[in-house]
Amino acid sequence: MFKHKLAVIGIGYVGLPLAASLSKHNQVLGFDIDKRRIKELKDNIDITKEFSINQLDNLNNLKFSSNISDLKNANIFFITVPTPINIYKKPDLKYLIKATEIAAKNLKKNSIVVYESTVYPGCTEEVCLPILEKISNLKSNKDFHVAYSPERINPGKSKYKLKNTVKVIGSSNSKVLNFLSKIYSKICLRVHTVNDIKTAEAAKIIENTQRDLNIALINELSIIFKKMNLDINKVLKAASTKWNFMKFEPGLVGGHCIGVDPYYLTYKSEKLNYKPKVILAGRKINDDMGDYVAKNVLNQLKDRKVKSKKILVLGASFKENCSDLRNSKIFDTIKYLEKKGSKVYIYDPLVPKKILRKVAKNILIKLNKKKFFDAIIISTKHDKFKIMGSKFIKKNIKKNGLIFDLKSTFPSSQTDWRL
Amino acid sequence: MFKHKLAVIGIGYVGLPLAASLSKHNQVLGFDIDKRRIKELKDNIDITKEFSINQLDNLNNLKFSSNISDLKNANIFFITVPTPINIYKKPDLKYLIKATEIAAKNLKKNSIVVYESTVYPGCTEEVCLPILEKISNLKSNKDFHVAYSPERINPGKSKYKLKNTVKVIGSSNSKVLNFLSKIYSKICLRVHTVNDIKTAEAAKIIENTQRDLNIALINELSIIFKKMNLDINKVLKAASTKWNFMKFEPGLVGGHCIGVDPYYLTYKSEKLNYKPKVILAGRKINDDMGDYVAKNVLNQLKDRKVKSKKILVLGASFKENCSDLRNSKIFDTIKYLEKKGSKVYIYDPLVPKKILRKVAKNILIKLNKKKFFDAIIISTKHDKFKIMGSKFIKKNIKKNGLIFDLKSTFPSSQTDWRL
Repeated sequence: MFKHKLAVIGIGYVGLPLAASLSKHNQVLGFDIDKRRIKELKDNIDITKEFSINQLDNLNNLKFSSNISDLKNANIFFITVPTPINIYKKPDLKYLIKATEIAAKNLKKNSIVVYESTVYPGCTEEVCLPILEKISNLKSNKDFHVAYSPERINPGKSKYKLKNTVKVIGSSNSKVLNFLSKIYSKICLRVHTVNDIKTAEAAKIIENTQRDLNIALINELSIIFKKMNLDINKVLKAASTKWNFMKFEPGLVGGHCIGVDPYYLTYKSEKLNYKPKVILAGRKINDDMGDYVAKNVLNQLKDRKVKSKKILVLGASFKENCSDLRNSKIFDTIKYLEKKGSKVYIYDPLVPKKILRKVAKNILIKLNKKKFFDAIIISTKHDKFKIMGSKFIKKNIKKNGLIFDLKSTFPSSQTDWRL
Repeated sequence: MFKHKLAVIGIGYVGLPLAASLSKHNQVLGFDIDKRRIKELKDNIDITKEFSINQLDNLNNLKFSSNISDLKNANIFFITVPTPINIYKKPDLKYLIKATEIAAKNLKKNSIVVYESTVYPGCTEEVCLPILEKISNLKSNKDFHVAYSPERINPGKSKYKLKNTVKVIGSSNSKVLNFLSKIYSKICLRVHTVNDIKTAEAAKIIENTQRDLNIALINELSIIFKKMNLDINKVLKAASTKWNFMKFEPGLVGGHCIGVDPYYLTYKSEKLNYKPKVILAGRKINDDMGDYVAKNVLNQLKDRKVKSKKILVLGASFKENCSDLRNSKIFDTIKYLEKKGSKVYIYDPLVPKKILRKVAKNILIKLNKKKFFDAIIISTKHDKFKIMGSKFIKKNIKKNGLIFDLKSTFPSSQTDWRL
């Protein structure tokens, strides 16, 4: 039935939806070096909560493996591993290189390797391609081909999923473009092809860079307007009545892409002797927001002469209605508060307890600490918090305790401070 | 017929459309200290080209004057004067203060002064209001009232005119808000009221700040992508297939608002001890683009070993299909080129010759210099240039001459360089 055997390397937030979609029209192997993840998926359990047990159970053409030898029959490889940054905010390509090596070992004549991981322009051809050639002893653009199709996965509740999203595909080989267009067009809204890999890499990186910068502007405005005693929400509402104003909200910028991808671009740009000014200024504002929140919390508590500083954080994930903790900036706030002597508790009904325990000293299983906290920081706008209501949440704080509502989950009259 | 007598002080790009619209439902005096402008308007001539002779002739309830005593019957004053920056990039409030003094001298009980000029949050109440009180000897919020309604005039060909634009009105007095809502709602799409002046001032300033920063990002990307040998147009086209990507183009940011307004906000912010990082980084990129273009022109000519450097600039106005020269950044490019020994000519069919002569050393009346120029810089995307076509334009350059198409007026194959 299937002519080609597809393998998706890296079965996380990006790889699993891709593998699942592809498996509706192809035989697909979902590969990951994380044995626990593979075991769970074989048991139809997706810890990222993007797929239910039933959904996974119904994917008959999708097999999972962490055994490299299972890739021996594959000839189309999709690389969907994370591309994070290191502590110096430089690209950390270790997963990308590892995945490339795994593909390279299984590369054969006429194989295609499609990268979906976000990288800087040039990375696929300058870093990955030489590894593929060296290990496989095959020649790119002759024996095998490389393409790039940036992922646009939006974790959590989102109306944008693969099937209603345009997919960019970049390759200098028109036959490869045609071939991949046929595969991708079955699982997405439509494909947009560009005839080089670098343009596709650049397209992806600027999408998130633009978003990051726009949030940085709103965060900077939030800082400025606090000094002017202006409510940024009212200002944004008024400005939004102009035909071309784009509404963004202040907030912590975390996660696997928006807070990370710009550093991939600035890294490459600096290598080419141009130090980005605007992009890095935006990154700095957003990177500093966690500390900015902590300082404001402490100042407000100081103003009220509160000394004990037991603080509850509601929401640990980097965005609303999502269990993803990667690069969540509220942990900057927590770290700062703890350094200054606060005892911080976390409650997030969306994040599995065992995951939360790994990253937090004190976690709450239930929100039932009557008049216990000096302050509550509502960090993410989870629907579950909205349903609870501010009245219920407030029961957990002491008299005169403060509520910091970072994402304006509730009307301003119901809380004490917001960005 | 008319209960109130309205006066619009400052009859330029903002004041004239406002006065014209208001005069359809009110008796309006259009006042300006520029006697020549008033004389021309009395002769139905609008040098800004926003109104035709016929259109002006039909405005029967709109009178023009530069005589302050003619304001003695007015009781509703609209201030629509320019608020530029000085050479230190700080707010230059001289026109605003002058207009305020003129209104103050004619202020009476129950008068309302509505500011439409773009200012920093707080300016109306901190700068203008005290002048009004002092000169008039009347008390604000008791004897007379002040409001703020930011202009959103888009000069040149634009589908957004007063009548299909939402108008923000800010005042702490609900009666004044109601009264002005009635007046404004007759001439615009709808009104959005806010109950303080500062929020309305802030809304206006962030609209243009956001636009400025987004263009700055694209300009920075243009600089980076040139170093990567990437065509930014192709990258933007691919990125634009994402649902939330916002398409902006690289280019020179000039004009009366986008390149100026952010400095009003940063001025006030610095007064409050916060030096904006993102906003100023964006301003710097955009302010430097004129020189960046000049450097690239000279480098390309040097690569071709061209020595004489006769350069033609097509388009002098700050944006397409518009005669407005205010703060047009192509003059930075021209200045730089001239400093380096180039002889620069300007051709702009939209700008009246007498105005162009004031700002340029060499102007062309017609585009008929056969094989004369070493380079042509197409600075604005006037429709007239598109209609001429690149073939016709090219006749003016020498063999091997270069065309720099800053705004991608023509396909990249027809020109030599673009942003």
